[in-house]
Amino acid sequence: MEVITSLDNKRIKNLSKLLVKKYRDEENKFLVEGEHLVEEAYKAGVLLEVVQTDDYNGLFDVETTYVTYDVIRKLSNTQNPQKVIGVCKKLDEKEIGSKIVILEDLQDPGNLGTIIRSSVAFNVDTIVLSSNTVDVYNDKVLRSSEGMLFHINIVKREIGTFIDELHEGGYVVYGTKVDGGTNLKDVTKVEKMAIVMGNEGAGVKDTTLDKCDSYLYIPMNSKCESLNVGVATSIILYELF
Amino acid sequence: MEVITSLDNKRIKNLSKLLVKKYRDEENKFLVEGEHLVEEAYKAGVLLEVVQTDDYNGLFDVETTYVTYDVIRKLSNTQNPQKVIGVCKKLDEKEIGSKIVILEDLQDPGNLGTIIRSSVAFNVDTIVLSSNTVDVYNDKVLRSSEGMLFHINIVKREIGTFIDELHEGGYVVYGTKVDGGTNLKDVTKVEKMAIVMGNEGAGVKDTTLDKCDSYLYIPMNSKCESLNVGVATSIILYELF
Repeated sequence: MEVITSLDNKRIKNLSKLLVKKYRDEENKFLVEGEHLVEEAYKAGVLLEVVQTDDYNGLFDVETTYVTYDVIRKLSNTQNPQKVIGVCKKLDEKEIGSKIVILEDLQDPGNLGTIIRSSVAFNVDTIVLSSNTVDVYNDKVLRSSEGMLFHINIVKREIGTFIDELHEGGYVVYGTKVDGGTNLKDVTKVEKMAIVMGNEGAGVKDTTLDKCDSYLYIPMNSKCESLNVGVATSIILYELF
Repeated sequence: MEVITSLDNKRIKNLSKLLVKKYRDEENKFLVEGEHLVEEAYKAGVLLEVVQTDDYNGLFDVETTYVTYDVIRKLSNTQNPQKVIGVCKKLDEKEIGSKIVILEDLQDPGNLGTIIRSSVAFNVDTIVLSSNTVDVYNDKVLRSSEGMLFHINIVKREIGTFIDELHEGGYVVYGTKVDGGTNLKDVTKVEKMAIVMGNEGAGVKDTTLDKCDSYLYIPMNSKCESLNVGVATSIILYELF
């Protein structure tokens, strides 16, 4: 078996560009790290090839490149990379279902990953991201999603236009505010619904709130100004979806 | 006003040791970064002194040391430190109330911070940490708690012994498992209760589960193996507390 040992190997250098969003967008590919994520990618039919250290035991039925531990570091942002990294093609958009989460300008990759994970847990069909939301193929998003992004439809849309389309389709769109609106515990469940969650610091934009049919809030102690957005989204999904 | 410009200043070097748990424990002090956290520390009466850059506008009524931006970096683990850092004495333990969250061996500082924030939101009195749980005065915990740790009682205990004490005090102790036990939506609320949440990878230890009165789980789609522990804790608190 041939093992790549050179840190200047051209093929590895090219793959390492996929750590940057610009190149992911250009090539329509992304990297996943570790056996669990690689396996999920394989099952989802998007695993193109793998790069693994020569002492790694697993074997995926795709093109495999063997490298040293020092070389695999080039494909990872973590301090202690795992022994296998998969190169995947980006997931196709699917049709939009009846339970939707809309994320406006979320910045923290951990929050997006957590929301993806909770969305699968609570039967969300589709997550809609504004163009200013952190990239779903960011390595931290992938890690904190625990591979759940392979089990859900994630699309990018201009939020305002998208809400207009939802209205035409008969959806109820809930905006979230720290105060005002209906207590989450009293919200009526409906068949076709969407919830809009906003940026970590700024919340949902006023122009977007104006387009929502109704508002809801999570009842809480006044000592606490707000919840983490990943937590807030998850509680709403647990209650309504 | 005297401004410290030397990176070798002894006083700053000594304070920078508080970034390490061992020294925090020895000195019974910790650092908080940024106006919001420093203000919360001041209101809680634990702010001993502040170190701030010479262009910082705020003024706290405690001993103040002025430094350059390069020097304040020595007191921070972030890439872009804020302009004010507070030196605080650790919070005193208070008496244990009726709503308790027990955390066994949590490792991720973001998760602990999130749980502290949600605990204040949902009226938890006391958070109990096992000795192997990440340090509550870790800078990432402080940041993700959004200063809420100043509004809640946090204590360290040996979990097994502590659960025995709770039983003597008439508390109901709920263990959490991915499967088994009662659906969270059907759990009866009681006056004095505690929930036990476990390590990110391993969950609650069997020996600890054996000591619990009852078990609960969050109903979810089988495609998702588990929720993030910060999310799971928050959903349980939202529902029961």
